[in-house]
Amino acid sequence: MKVAVLPGDRIGPEVTAEALRVLEALDLPGLTLLEGDVGGIACKRHGHPLPPETLAVARAADAILFGAVGDPDCDGLERALRPEQAILGLRSAFGLFANLRPATTFPGLEGMSALRPEIAARIDLLIVRELTGDVYFGDKRIETLPDGRRRGWDMMSYAEDEVRRIAHVAFRAAQGRKRRLCSVDKANVLETSQLWRDVVIEVAAEYPDVVLEHMYVDNAAMQLVRDPGRFDVVVTGNLFGDILSDQASMCVGSIGLLASASLGERQTDYGTFGLYEPIHGSAPDIAGRGLANPMATILSAAMMLRHSFGREAEAARIEAAVAGALADGVRGGDLGGEAGTAAIGDAVLARL
Amino acid sequence: MKVAVLPGDRIGPEVTAEALRVLEALDLPGLTLLEGDVGGIACKRHGHPLPPETLAVARAADAILFGAVGDPDCDGLERALRPEQAILGLRSAFGLFANLRPATTFPGLEGMSALRPEIAARIDLLIVRELTGDVYFGDKRIETLPDGRRRGWDMMSYAEDEVRRIAHVAFRAAQGRKRRLCSVDKANVLETSQLWRDVVIEVAAEYPDVVLEHMYVDNAAMQLVRDPGRFDVVVTGNLFGDILSDQASMCVGSIGLLASASLGERQTDYGTFGLYEPIHGSAPDIAGRGLANPMATILSAAMMLRHSFGREAEAARIEAAVAGALADGVRGGDLGGEAGTAAIGDAVLARL
Ligand SMILES: CC(C)[C@H](C(=O)O)[C@@H](O)C(=O)O
Ligand SMILES: CC(C)[C@H](C(=O)O)[C@@H](O)C(=O)O
Repeated sequence: MKVAVLPGDRIGPEVTAEALRVLEALDLPGLTLLEGDVGGIACKRHGHPLPPETLAVARAADAILFGAVGDPDCDGLERALRPEQAILGLRSAFGLFANLRPATTFPGLEGMSALRPEIAARIDLLIVRELTGDVYFGDKRIETLPDGRRRGWDMMSYAEDEVRRIAHVAFRAAQGRKRRLCSVDKANVLETSQLWRDVVIEVAAEYPDVVLEHMYVDNAAMQLVRDPGRFDVVVTGNLFGDILSDQASMCVGSIGLLASASLGERQTDYGTFGLYEPIHGSAPDIAGRGLANPMATILSAAMMLRHSFGREAEAARIEAAVAGALADGVRGGDLGGEAGTAAIGDAVLARL
Repeated sequence: MKVAVLPGDRIGPEVTAEALRVLEALDLPGLTLLEGDVGGIACKRHGHPLPPETLAVARAADAILFGAVGDPDCDGLERALRPEQAILGLRSAFGLFANLRPATTFPGLEGMSALRPEIAARIDLLIVRELTGDVYFGDKRIETLPDGRRRGWDMMSYAEDEVRRIAHVAFRAAQGRKRRLCSVDKANVLETSQLWRDVVIEVAAEYPDVVLEHMYVDNAAMQLVRDPGRFDVVVTGNLFGDILSDQASMCVGSIGLLASASLGERQTDYGTFGLYEPIHGSAPDIAGRGLANPMATILSAAMMLRHSFGREAEAARIEAAVAGALADGVRGGDLGGEAGTAAIGDAVLARL
């Protein structure tokens, strides 16, 4: 069981260190940690945000535990060298097509949301975002037209097999939850969405126990404000998923607590190959001061144990320890509290 | 001064009637009303949601006052015949490239929002959405690949002149407000966005009094939840604008109060040609019962007087009358009150 640990930039290494302490405390037989540079730090050390060395480390592993990338020092670089390209590069190199982003309000934290507490309290949803297609990975260019005008363009597209495999992931996830799936598209305007909708409807025939609805993305953005508690599982394309999953996580009000998994098709000896990362960024403003909340990364490690290593029991233990720490009032600065990175790690370890 | 009145479907005619009563009460010399069918009703009567008769009426006018379209009876029709195609058709026929969507919380209505009242109270923003370009109007198709797979695709693009003209609209709007402009794109992934950003920066040189910032669309969706009061004017492309403007209107919590203007390049003898419509839909569930809140349509008529007829004084009178009615506790069902469509119209008329 090999994990490629890619801590990344700024608070990335700080939060990753706490997740590793938690993993080590579980004393899983055969768990090996490999390390690699990614993001701005990799750019400085190796001239590329995702250097070949790091790709090799990831290839040798069964899962990737990712901290965060993003470094203001790199703002001036051309796009291909900017830290966030490492994320896109890993997604495409490993075919990580299924991004799972749970957004659930922890009991006692209803007051942290910008939403009214009674609305925030009901949030318990999972966004399943397609991660390797759509307008992200199509042809794109800035060109000069014959008349001298500049024009930028990007090709948006989905092929039916791409839609089908993410739909299966979403339907299966719904079967393990409240059996409701909302597919979000813009089929009144986009042909890409019309195909998406057609294929999701075809796949639905295999899941008669799941109730499927379709919603336009503009309406989904409204309903996520009005009553996010109405959603169970949401499935959508790469671009809409980028927007809606960030919106949903802000509805919960504590992005320092939200984990994510990006799964590929490759099966290892232990489970599905995947990349696990907190949804927050590298937070340059608080980096280096031991202030970052590591809970999102610790919960990402739990998702890793579940999806990539088939260790449901240990995953649940970690999740219970985090929930227990929160229930006992352990609060990082992101939640208006005083607990620092290491203290939060200690609190979780104490409750394992 | 000719207005093409297109009431549309379901509650469309009900709310439009009240806006017309308000316009008539102002007794504007030379104001002429023309009428046309649009949406589902036009489909039933003329076989098309935007028939040539209606286009001719609109062409003969200086502005369009639009109710709402959408009719569940039309759900089974092919996309080209569905009511919402009338909206897209009018936008492209008249080159209505600049969509202005103010979202402001009316005093006393802070409690209507899903956001915490102290957050909702601070919302006072204007979204400027480009309306005739982007992935909406590019080439698009569902095709079968040589290997038999279906694939859907849509071309996203902006040319520099399209970006430049909407940027000018947004900068000028910011000059009339708090002089802050946030341009929203996804320049870390899309070339269309990179060109968008480059051109907005070029245009900014002409508006040294406006503070410009750039924000990725996923972050904008988060900030609109966390603290929408931080925004003054937001400018963005057609697709992101569709999502963010609906999200912003739901943050205000009273979509029965929100107006919009869609302006073209054409100058008439009185001002800019434009289409004015409430942002709510045709609400089939409450249609025919005199329950719809006409305030959004009345406020849209005020925007029409301002932008298409240069009648700032009358526009402000209407807006003050609506605000006065709200301040006096007049509440439609959308705000948890009892006032019906006609009663709200009466209340606004009484305060003109
Ligand atoms: C960094 C960026 C390219 C990325 C995306 O848009 O997918 C990020 O926003 C995310 O959601 O993981
Ligand atoms: C009806 C639909 C085509 C339209 C759009 O997407 O522009 C609507 O959502 C809007 O925002 O006016």
